[in-house]
Amino acid sequence: MTASHNTYLYNSAIPTAEEALHDCVTGEIFLKPEEMQAVLNMVEIKRFEKGSLLLQEGQYAKACYYNVQGCVRQFYLKGGEEKTTFFYTEEQSISSLNSTIADTPVDYYLECTEDTILAVMSHEKEEELYSRFPRFESLCRQGLERQIAVYHNLLTSYMTSSPEERYLQLIRERPKLIHRVPQYQLASYLGVKPESLSRIRKRILTKKELRS
Amino acid sequence: MTASHNTYLYNSAIPTAEEALHDCVTGEIFLKPEEMQAVLNMVEIKRFEKGSLLLQEGQYAKACYYNVQGCVRQFYLKGGEEKTTFFYTEEQSISSLNSTIADTPVDYYLECTEDTILAVMSHEKEEELYSRFPRFESLCRQGLERQIAVYHNLLTSYMTSSPEERYLQLIRERPKLIHRVPQYQLASYLGVKPESLSRIRKRILTKKELRS
Repeated sequence: MTASHNTYLYNSAIPTAEEALHDCVTGEIFLKPEEMQAVLNMVEIKRFEKGSLLLQEGQYAKACYYNVQGCVRQFYLKGGEEKTTFFYTEEQSISSLNSTIADTPVDYYLECTEDTILAVMSHEKEEELYSRFPRFESLCRQGLERQIAVYHNLLTSYMTSSPEERYLQLIRERPKLIHRVPQYQLASYLGVKPESLSRIRKRILTKKELRS
Repeated sequence: MTASHNTYLYNSAIPTAEEALHDCVTGEIFLKPEEMQAVLNMVEIKRFEKGSLLLQEGQYAKACYYNVQGCVRQFYLKGGEEKTTFFYTEEQSISSLNSTIADTPVDYYLECTEDTILAVMSHEKEEELYSRFPRFESLCRQGLERQIAVYHNLLTSYMTSSPEERYLQLIRERPKLIHRVPQYQLASYLGVKPESLSRIRKRILTKKELRS
């Protein structure tokens, strides 16, 4: 996160596609000016207020997103209870591939937990870019590979670690996140009740004090 | 799984790349004959005996695999205990993107739990194909999207379901798997002790009997 990103929200200005996506599209593979322009023309930069729902259970996913600034939470409603499964923050892509590939409605919600600025691209435009510019497809292929690595690590963490280990990992890997989201959502994301998260925190604090 | 696949193992013959990958490379996007031939030339079809390790903790991943026939288990060794995190069966790709992207050794094992036939492609050859044939990259990009959808569903299942619900889901989605792998590995994959898996099975059987 750079300071320039933050200013988008403080002055409520919506950045241009060029400003918002500069780091993203120039990151991995250098795109030619005409390719860059085509990507920027196909993208819409939108501002969503805190609490906005990008997608609700039962709806079809028609677009993918790139998070310029803010936080989007994915959650499921199960027996009236919210189960948080992901927090997408800056520079992360949000897609609903399980819905688009199978052409089925999603079974979850995507909610902005902060005022959020997203780059939005429809699936039709995405496909058009793939067929026009193979280098854009390379860029996206590499992005997908990184996303798989993230999912893989997260899955592994869930399958092999205790909630306390997962909490410590989160502090190491995404230190800002634990201050950005409500504790009940964080507890749900870690797979524990809020009171268990409090106990975990106390335990960690006690261990720290004993070491110091 | 088709009968023709099974014959590879019964007669111990290793199929040609063309036989092994026919369904895979002609599946999504039609490749031109020269593209198809280039893919087939870059791929090596290998037979691995049950118990073979494709990758061990501390090694660098240098290739990706496509499972033609057999089963590959991914597991972690944690405190002397094996934690199974994935079973790759027919028509699934096996890559270690978290290792190749960050150029770090893997922290897990890939083991063939059956005699297994895999299509093997080195990362160098994969990159060469991407740059020579954009349509091959399209094919792989779509494969990655499907893989993300699989990971997403698996992750969701872990974060929102009980072990019993996960077991029922496995029976629905991969009914053959529960007969192909040892029960202690299956229990580990579901995140429970073997004795808990036995209890889950008994409970499901009792419910079935009550309904019939």
